[in-house]
Amino acid sequence: MASRTALRRRFGPATTVLVAYAAVVTGGTALLVLPIAKAGPGRSDVLDALFTAISAVSVTGLTTVDTPRQWNGFGQTVILVLVQAGGLGIMTLASLIGLAVARRLTLGSKLSTSVEAQGVGIADIRRFVTGAIRISLGIEAVGALLLGTWFWLTGDFSPGDAAWFGVFHSVMAFNNAGFVILPRGLVPFVGDPVVSGVIAALVLIGSLGFPVLDELRRHWRTPRRWTVNTRLVLWGSVVLTAVGTVFIVVVEWGRAGTLGPLDWPTKLLAGFFQAVQTRSGGFNTVDVGALDGATLLVMDVLMFIGGGPAGTAGGIKLTTFGVLFFVLVAEMRARSSVNVFGKRLPAGVDRTAITISLVSVAVVVGSTVALTVITDQPVGRMAFEAISAFATVGLSTGVTPDLPPAAQALLLVLMFAGRLGPILLASALAVRSRPLTYEFPTERPIIG
Amino acid sequence: MASRTALRRRFGPATTVLVAYAAVVTGGTALLVLPIAKAGPGRSDVLDALFTAISAVSVTGLTTVDTPRQWNGFGQTVILVLVQAGGLGIMTLASLIGLAVARRLTLGSKLSTSVEAQGVGIADIRRFVTGAIRISLGIEAVGALLLGTWFWLTGDFSPGDAAWFGVFHSVMAFNNAGFVILPRGLVPFVGDPVVSGVIAALVLIGSLGFPVLDELRRHWRTPRRWTVNTRLVLWGSVVLTAVGTVFIVVVEWGRAGTLGPLDWPTKLLAGFFQAVQTRSGGFNTVDVGALDGATLLVMDVLMFIGGGPAGTAGGIKLTTFGVLFFVLVAEMRARSSVNVFGKRLPAGVDRTAITISLVSVAVVVGSTVALTVITDQPVGRMAFEAISAFATVGLSTGVTPDLPPAAQALLLVLMFAGRLGPILLASALAVRSRPLTYEFPTERPIIG
Ligand SMILES: [K+]
Ligand SMILES: [K+]
Repeated sequence: MASRTALRRRFGPATTVLVAYAAVVTGGTALLVLPIAKAGPGRSDVLDALFTAISAVSVTGLTTVDTPRQWNGFGQTVILVLVQAGGLGIMTLASLIGLAVARRLTLGSKLSTSVEAQGVGIADIRRFVTGAIRISLGIEAVGALLLGTWFWLTGDFSPGDAAWFGVFHSVMAFNNAGFVILPRGLVPFVGDPVVSGVIAALVLIGSLGFPVLDELRRHWRTPRRWTVNTRLVLWGSVVLTAVGTVFIVVVEWGRAGTLGPLDWPTKLLAGFFQAVQTRSGGFNTVDVGALDGATLLVMDVLMFIGGGPAGTAGGIKLTTFGVLFFVLVAEMRARSSVNVFGKRLPAGVDRTAITISLVSVAVVVGSTVALTVITDQPVGRMAFEAISAFATVGLSTGVTPDLPPAAQALLLVLMFAGRLGPILLASALAVRSRPLTYEFPTERPIIG
Repeated sequence: MASRTALRRRFGPATTVLVAYAAVVTGGTALLVLPIAKAGPGRSDVLDALFTAISAVSVTGLTTVDTPRQWNGFGQTVILVLVQAGGLGIMTLASLIGLAVARRLTLGSKLSTSVEAQGVGIADIRRFVTGAIRISLGIEAVGALLLGTWFWLTGDFSPGDAAWFGVFHSVMAFNNAGFVILPRGLVPFVGDPVVSGVIAALVLIGSLGFPVLDELRRHWRTPRRWTVNTRLVLWGSVVLTAVGTVFIVVVEWGRAGTLGPLDWPTKLLAGFFQAVQTRSGGFNTVDVGALDGATLLVMDVLMFIGGGPAGTAGGIKLTTFGVLFFVLVAEMRARSSVNVFGKRLPAGVDRTAITISLVSVAVVVGSTVALTVITDQPVGRMAFEAISAFATVGLSTGVTPDLPPAAQALLLVLMFAGRLGPILLASALAVRSRPLTYEFPTERPIIG
């Protein structure tokens, strides 16, 4: 059935999404190369503008230039709009695809109980878009108010600068895009509980994803009604943040370039802040390039897993990792079905999780190999930059601005692929009809 | 049913295997610390002797000392016996467990067709042991004859030395244990097609595993009768060796410390030889420590995947990786069953593969983090040593002799765990009965 309609049904949505993102990136790049976007004289390099636009639309925050020195107020506004568009776009898009997947699966497996078995219509799109905008703007407004007021009260900033810094960083934090326009970055705020706390809270909330936020808003008083998706994301966030905090604090405790010079409450705050950023905010209050190689490796793993689905977080997602983890638990306990928080995982979801994970591992390893060959940098640092880009985190050991154009171009592709790849792949896998095939006899190879 | 019989049935075989291996390691260590085992005056350090014994029994070849300088003829004979015992032990043990698993599964799923549904008896054990001994000694004899004659004809060795070098390295190569007792190692033979070719061939053949070797011996003329296990291992070996060879030759082509100074046929031979060693021989004709970081990372992946099951190769095994890969292929092609070479994988085998892989990733990452923290070495090198130990490969960037005792102890545990862990875990997962549990309602989280 390779009719035009069938083809459009198969490739249509993905193509639309790719074209829409490419258009936004092109528009953003065009604005950013204009001289009116650049701080100081002249205009920006096209690769720098393109890199910034893709980094913003993919809500990453990785940069080839120093944001406040390169971009003036107009340029920063372009970044702000691109980030907001990218964040809302993914929240809406992924939620719609998730709904379509759920309905298609419900319809297919004839398990229709609570969800009505019907297609995704205009009403759904409107509901998701307005819901995402309302949640985003509401939380961002609270964050902007807190940050702006605090910057005004405690910093040497004019009221206008303080307000702009508050708005900009609140939007960046909620959308998990690690752009910073403070003149000396966030490092001076390593011991500031308000700046660190508000930004960490915004990043954590944003990384949960729209379905979780929507459910928490509607059912926050009745946790027993929460879906498996929400429970996996919340528990995953808690566990990964705790593991990351403990590890960073312990390993970096006495290290001269990072937590060493700080007093112990600041060490704890900085460790917590940095652990949160792997899910996938991308801000830093310590020098990432000075962290121990072991810390970078642990952060690699946390970034690769990422945050909640259908949100601004990247990585393979806490749910994908959770499915693999609970398959392991079920195997260890000799259970024939995989149970997660009182629900059984449907057949096939573990295969989708395997596929997403294997493809992501292949992309990350392949990119790391390529970056190492291109740059001759240590493989540990190239792995960190590759995972940071692919998982749209935006943390950097500081080498990205000095990388050759080929390496920067690869990171740029990784950000774009990391933002759209998993969601498009997972939805493509989930919604297809599976043709009945001739059944071969079973045979088991030896495992392990 | 926690009766003593049930407990023995559950934990019995694993405990027996662990005790047997521990006994062999203890005996080997006791012999190696004797002054009569050491070249030159004095006696060896206990940690060095223990490390050598575990490295030999686990057929790894990782060393904390220079083998020919540390051990005299008696010490080298102890290593030879430990390697042969370790290699035969795993071949027999894993094959028996594999047979038990196959019969148990056949019995349980009532699919008994060709295999008789009965337990594993004395006759099976005798058949496997004699089969493994016959295959091992036969191939080792051919290898020893070729290598010994060539050493005698072309080297400056006495006939006795040439014969001993031939026997020792043939046994090492077939058992995938990378110990070398040639005075200047294998690097001088980088361009020698006979030494490189025979050792590579022995390593490749040994890495296939006993079930594949046994099947090839009986059915080598009728490939259509080969099992999925054999096809996965053969294809996996071909693909991984090809990928490794191409990558090493291309990346190292002009590198001064490795392939740079060699003429092009020698570059190809050396690249092929080094690629073969990741599956998991552990010999080297180029300086592993001088390889590009990207090459080490690619070798990490190849070593982690490893060779065939129920043999002397380590890693998660080509079959485990093959199952994950074909799950991905089935997902991409929207198939509801996972078909591999004309057979369908039974339900549950993908979950076992997930479990083995996740546990192995966790062990490798955890060990790399620990080694990096302990030693302050670059994370890339520590990952290589950790994977080399866990996958019982034995390749080294050269840092192992200089590592602190805590790091050496960790590598020692990794070799032991890597040798016995996957097989015991996989067999434990496969043979247990799965209790019928209350079935929860299904619910699907969002993946990707
Ligand atoms: K980010
Ligand atoms: K080995």
